[in-house]
Parts: sequence; structure tokens; C-alpha cells
Amino acid sequence: MLSSHKIKIIQSLDKKKFRQKYNLFLVEGNKIIREMVNSPFKIKEIFSVNSDLNYLKNIEITEISSTDLKKISFLQHPKDSVALCEIPLEEDFIECDRQIILDGIQDPGNLGTIIRLADWFGIEQIICSEDTVDFLKPKVIMASMGSFLRVKIIYKNLDNYLENTKNVNIGTDMNGENIYNFEFPKQFNLILGNEGNGMRENTFNQLQHKITIPRFGISKSTESLNVSMATGIILGQIFSR
Amino acid sequence: MLSSHKIKIIQSLDKKKFRQKYNLFLVEGNKIIREMVNSPFKIKEIFSVNSDLNYLKNIEITEISSTDLKKISFLQHPKDSVALCEIPLEEDFIECDRQIILDGIQDPGNLGTIIRLADWFGIEQIICSEDTVDFLKPKVIMASMGSFLRVKIIYKNLDNYLENTKNVNIGTDMNGENIYNFEFPKQFNLILGNEGNGMRENTFNQLQHKITIPRFGISKSTESLNVSMATGIILGQIFSR
Repeated sequence: MLSSHKIKIIQSLDKKKFRQKYNLFLVEGNKIIREMVNSPFKIKEIFSVNSDLNYLKNIEITEISSTDLKKISFLQHPKDSVALCEIPLEEDFIECDRQIILDGIQDPGNLGTIIRLADWFGIEQIICSEDTVDFLKPKVIMASMGSFLRVKIIYKNLDNYLENTKNVNIGTDMNGENIYNFEFPKQFNLILGNEGNGMRENTFNQLQHKITIPRFGISKSTESLNVSMATGIILGQIFSR
Repeated sequence: MLSSHKIKIIQSLDKKKFRQKYNLFLVEGNKIIREMVNSPFKIKEIFSVNSDLNYLKNIEITEISSTDLKKISFLQHPKDSVALCEIPLEEDFIECDRQIILDGIQDPGNLGTIIRLADWFGIEQIICSEDTVDFLKPKVIMASMGSFLRVKIIYKNLDNYLENTKNVNIGTDMNGENIYNFEFPKQFNLILGNEGNGMRENTFNQLQHKITIPRFGISKSTESLNVSMATGIILGQIFSR
């Protein structure tokens, strides 16, 4: 049984304020929960409609009804389980050779997708501006499909960082160099800006190179590609060499 | 004013059955509605919270409250206007040199994103299996960001088609050739399968080449890339040559 007090706490974890208050975030689905067991992340408690996770020792597992699951899930079609996990200590910052930098990404689906891409392409670290959406938000965790377990995600003042980094700062810009002709250096920060407004001026001013994905269609639309799709196409290109 | 009968009709347009019954589909937002005016698609009626479209002649425009807009919008954050549009006649099928073929794509966001990618990369035509989600569904139209106006989308029995096409059938497969070494022919069908189950066996048996996006990360996750992201990365690669 799930008390209504507990339900209320879990529902509140969509908001950063409450995640910090309870020191908890939420992970859904047995598949990702199983991957967590072998990670540094710590599961505190699991609520599940089945007994597929019962082999896990030292973790409190409560069997719940699917009606209760619907109440605590953030998914339109809830999976089998919801795990309450402890917020990890922020890791020490170590600069990596190939990094993604996000300046003000707001959409949880975009951040989750970019984390998943970083994992696929072996980018070890994502550095986010302080106003980028929190990666512990349930929708980001879900969209990352477990990749948040393998990619370091750091929140940082970008102004300071970009000025002092040893990596080459490369950002997307409509008037940038064609990615198909651009030679990526060994050490780089790939910088992407907010969905609507792009990157802030301070960030833009720190770019050493601007790149763009050329449009091949005849479309006169002013729409650019979605930021996570652009990230995927650029990473695909970097790793083709 | 919007009658409750009208609201009910508009809300029903999420379902293909009702789109066909009324011969209508729905487009949201002034930006896309403006692009429609210069397309072969025909707008029947517009409901808007502002007067930004009033310069359009010969189209009935009803000013509505934002409360009413919320009732007829399929967006979490409704835009300014909703247009009721006539379902176009199915276009005659003409084979193009570079096509995307979708076998059983179910997620409206994925189909919309793939339409947007086709538009960006100048792919003229997408051929969908008959069980692929209908592109006139409101969520697909929204995710395509107006690109449905410029890309031909055809629904077809794939078995017949793939057997007789002059194009080379190329599909994604975990054990396929590395896309970075693969030489794309001039005339091809890029074939992508259902989100969960991949392509049907009949489709798979018609492939002349299987390709894969190599994973660079150390992740042992069994998760593959999302189908629309895979499409973007492959198209990005094709056009890099």
C-alpha cells in the first residue's frame, strides 16, 4: 500500500525544490532500475506492480496496484516500477577532451535525448549552464533511457568556464561553416543554445568556430532543425572521420 | 463563439475515422497556417485568439477566447490559432530517386520529425506502410513543423512495392554495414522499421543492404538510438559525400 502522503511526496519530485528538500529523484521502469544497481547511483525504495525486481537484496520493494502506479508515474503509459533514488553528490569537475556544452536548454526531452546521444558517441561529459533544465527531472531521466548513468552532467557558470577552457569552443550558428567541410579538433566543446533564442551573447562571444548543418531541401521555411537532432547529426559527422 | 457541437467535431479529429468522416484535419499556429496559404492544401476555417491572420481573404476566421482555444487545441501550450483544413486527394504515385520508407512507425512525434528531416535534406517522398500512423493526425502535423506541406507522403502496400522498385532497398539493422564505410547509391529507399519491433520480415527480406550506426561509447546498454534520430544521422551521413 502506498500512503497518500507518500504519493504526494513522489508527485512533488517533478519540481527541483522538492527533489532537493527530500534529496530524492525518480527513475521508472525495471530495465533502467536494473542498470542502476551496478552504478554509483543509490536506490532508496522501489514501488512495483510485479515481482521482477525481488532478487535485489537490501532494497525495500513495495508491491503496489496499477492504479497506485498511475498516481506516482510521470509517464502517459506507466511502466512496471518506480524507484526513489538518492541525489548523488556533485562530482568534481575534470575537463574532458570532447564535451557538449548546453546553454539554456529548457525542454526535458531535448536534454534527455542529448544525454542519450553523448552515451552513444562516447562523450564523457555534458556541461550545462545553470539555467539549463535539471537532469534529475523525471522527464529528462526517462528520455535519457538510462544514459544519465554513464554520462557526467555538470552545472556551471559558462562565462567563466568558456573563457578558460583548453578545448576549442565550437558552436552552431546559421551562418557558420558547413559541418561537412569543417575539421574538428581533437579537443573541443560542442556548444548548443536554447531552443527558442539560441545561445546567450556571452557564450556566442567565446566561440572560436561557428558551424552549421547545410539545408539540402528547397524549403524556404525559417524553421531550423530541433537542437537534439542537430546535436545528433553533428556528432554523427564528427565520428565519421 | 464556438458552439459545443463544433468543439466536439474538432476534438474528434485526433481519430482517423472522424478525419475521414468530416474530410478535415487540423493545423495549429499562425506560422504554419501562413505557409499553408501558398500550398496546394486548402484551409476551410480558422479559429484564432488574435487578428494576425485577418489579411487572409476568402477564409472564414472566427475570433475565439483563449479558453475556447484550449478546448480545441491538441497542444499542451496552445498557440494562437487552429485551422480546419480539407484532406487533400491522394497524389499519384511517382517513384523518386531518394526516398524514405517507413514500416509500421507508430509514434506521431517520430513520423513528424522524419517528415521535417526529409524536408531539410530534400527527400521528396516518404512511403509509409498502411499501418504507419496517419500523417494527418494533429500530433504528426505539429511535429513536422509545416514540412508536411513540402514532402509527399504516400501510404502503400510495401510488399508489392519493395519487390518492384528500381531503387536499392537499404535498411537499418544492428548487424549491418557501418554507415561510415557504406557507399550510398544514387537511387535508394532508406527503410526504417517500427519503434519496438523493427521492420516486418517481408520488408527485411527485400533489403539489398543493411546498415548500422556504430556505437562509440562504452555503454553496454541494449538501447538503440530512437528511429527518428537514426534517420537524421544517416541522412546527415548520406549528404556528407
